[in-house]
Amino acid sequence: MSAGGGIGIGLMGLGIVGSGVARILHEKADVYARQIGHPLKLRRVLVRDVEKERGFSVDPALLTADGGALLDDPAIQLIIEVMGGEQPAYDYLRSALKAGKFVVTANKEVMAKHGGELLMLAREHSVDLLYEASVGGGIPIIAPLKRDLLANDIAGVTAIINGTTNYILTSMSRDGVSFADALAEAQRLGYAESDPTNDIEANDAAYKLAILATLSFHLDIHPDEVYREGITRLTARDFQYARELGYAIKLLAIAQRRSGGVQARVHPALVPQDELLANVDGVLNAVQIEGDLMNRVLFQGPGAGSLPTTSAVVADALDAAVSISNHVYWPHSIRREGELHVLPISDVRTRYYLRISVADRPGVLALVAGSLGDAGISIASLIQKEVDGEAMPEIVIMTHEAQESDLQSALRHIGELADVGAVEQVLRVLA
Amino acid sequence: MSAGGGIGIGLMGLGIVGSGVARILHEKADVYARQIGHPLKLRRVLVRDVEKERGFSVDPALLTADGGALLDDPAIQLIIEVMGGEQPAYDYLRSALKAGKFVVTANKEVMAKHGGELLMLAREHSVDLLYEASVGGGIPIIAPLKRDLLANDIAGVTAIINGTTNYILTSMSRDGVSFADALAEAQRLGYAESDPTNDIEANDAAYKLAILATLSFHLDIHPDEVYREGITRLTARDFQYARELGYAIKLLAIAQRRSGGVQARVHPALVPQDELLANVDGVLNAVQIEGDLMNRVLFQGPGAGSLPTTSAVVADALDAAVSISNHVYWPHSIRREGELHVLPISDVRTRYYLRISVADRPGVLALVAGSLGDAGISIASLIQKEVDGEAMPEIVIMTHEAQESDLQSALRHIGELADVGAVEQVLRVLA
Repeated sequence: MSAGGGIGIGLMGLGIVGSGVARILHEKADVYARQIGHPLKLRRVLVRDVEKERGFSVDPALLTADGGALLDDPAIQLIIEVMGGEQPAYDYLRSALKAGKFVVTANKEVMAKHGGELLMLAREHSVDLLYEASVGGGIPIIAPLKRDLLANDIAGVTAIINGTTNYILTSMSRDGVSFADALAEAQRLGYAESDPTNDIEANDAAYKLAILATLSFHLDIHPDEVYREGITRLTARDFQYARELGYAIKLLAIAQRRSGGVQARVHPALVPQDELLANVDGVLNAVQIEGDLMNRVLFQGPGAGSLPTTSAVVADALDAAVSISNHVYWPHSIRREGELHVLPISDVRTRYYLRISVADRPGVLALVAGSLGDAGISIASLIQKEVDGEAMPEIVIMTHEAQESDLQSALRHIGELADVGAVEQVLRVLA
Repeated sequence: MSAGGGIGIGLMGLGIVGSGVARILHEKADVYARQIGHPLKLRRVLVRDVEKERGFSVDPALLTADGGALLDDPAIQLIIEVMGGEQPAYDYLRSALKAGKFVVTANKEVMAKHGGELLMLAREHSVDLLYEASVGGGIPIIAPLKRDLLANDIAGVTAIINGTTNYILTSMSRDGVSFADALAEAQRLGYAESDPTNDIEANDAAYKLAILATLSFHLDIHPDEVYREGITRLTARDFQYARELGYAIKLLAIAQRRSGGVQARVHPALVPQDELLANVDGVLNAVQIEGDLMNRVLFQGPGAGSLPTTSAVVADALDAAVSISNHVYWPHSIRREGELHVLPISDVRTRYYLRISVADRPGVLALVAGSLGDAGISIASLIQKEVDGEAMPEIVIMTHEAQESDLQSALRHIGELADVGAVEQVLRVLA
């Protein structure tokens, strides 16, 4: 297909990211044309409502509510999809690839659920499917995993990849406020959506972890296989105890290669205060990758927002444009290592933080410690605290490394003890 | 050229990095072959002394002291150069590119001094020249700048890119030891060479900064244009004062776009303790990049060492192997923006830390402050300290932002004041 008239682009979606992409492609048209040797030309923009008022100037003649107007236009060689959500984006991307168009997407849900299939489809049609913006906003992370760290056997990924929850946890830690108050503030500032479920229940982070783990371990990990716990049950007291013990609390996305399989989990965790990840605050994201050769590399930056995400989308678009204008296709091989599978959460071995409310009677501490000991779990440190007002006193226990299944069975025993109010909190600890 | 028999590799250099590359290509031959679809085959290894005893098993039949044996072998499609130094590496790389071979190099000196010419040569011969390992060891940084951040106008790069000096500065800060003692310890541990000049006088960091600045700003910056100050004049007292003021001291490599040009400088600097760069300790490296879209992204990891550097070299080799085996050439465009030039150090505007020894007489402080004021430099904070023993008392001044030329002229005046012993230390401060 000739690039004589420039690289024809069809943009799907004109929300926060789409508007940024349209604006930057316009503002930087000259510099990108010098970079690629051909202009990038925005030919059609797919929107839900063509009549809607918009705060900036995309030529109204480009707008359409009909996906076919982009997919069937042979002058469009590159589709940029920033509409989000599984459908109709998934169908559009399949159609675009089958039509031999290059595709750039920021869609974490589609890539997490259907990435393997779409990448194969791209390969069959000798085009590329690029998705840097699906994880970590403006932080380069997909391309480094695909290319720069490829010589390594990846041992693990440990990441803070949801800016909304990191903003909430940073507020709770810094201001001592409740989860509800921190969420309300994040919503007021536009860092959390009016329905925050996907962020606070860790679904968003699970999508992104599935993408990172799939790339890291060369096997298809579906987001449903990612264990997830959200941040809604964290209390101001947990942050206070964690600080006393020398830890921050972060929503971590962790994927690790273990003998016999891979662990993939998203949950709040205690992170030692001298770890870099403990100091990634506010809406920042960070991804730490461990490999056999490069040891540990950390990437940090803005994980969301219109311009950072635009940075990733346009970088992919420029990459695709080089391929298109030079009539070359870069055959990223998709290596699959079949023998690995995702391990259940009960197989996890880690340290734990436990907060347990107890009756103020002698002997209860010995009973709790005994239940842990019976399950083979040893205690690293223990704090007993008076609690203001009517509440029962609490004991806070840090365990040595233990297996999740052993811990859960010990906690069932502890919950049944007469003098125990409840196991109020269980958090894993980053080793 | 057919890849039927695999991708033929010629390795130049079998030192610390070369040995790692040879070993990993051997140990991971199967997984790399699965990744690329063809085996990578080490065909010849260029060494200085074929007879030398080596601690691992490279087939002795592969060794040669004759560069032509690699350059003239049509079965060698890819040259990996890890010998270091300007010559004969530079001549070998030119010959390899002219012979149509792909080239992977870890050579910062050659890339800093001749990168522009070699990249043009590669382009002319439709091959690629890859140099990820030349900066930042195992940290992906060249590829992200070439590709992932390309949508941005890069505003600046601020980096810790020399592990030897960072190790020495970390020791001086943590243990309160002198530069000489910290250097001796680094040499004993193998982190500093017996002739440490290139590291401690900032030549190594200047090479790397020239490479990063050239990529960031799309103009050719020769290492001779990079202003450099080493770390040899830092004293234990500077670290003590810096800590009291809330700063670490790091050897920073800084490149910034300014109106009318680019600043490129390597020197020790005070870094606020809450900046991530202040907490990059020991032999770690970190590169922070600012752009108009992605804001600030930071990459951190091991900046040197056999395996981390091997990680970068082999990643480039795998990338080149994909091109070779698929008969495609990825035409990285080399965009040059001619109008920018490197600004002199006298144009820098920054804050300064000054340590000045003075006679213990009334009025001297007013004279020093007056000299700064006359040059339009205002004082942000001032500490006057007694010094043990015979030494003169010291005043430590933090200035507000000032222009380097104004500061230097003020310091000339101050140096001539009767009651001033000497301007003992001048350090720039990271804004």
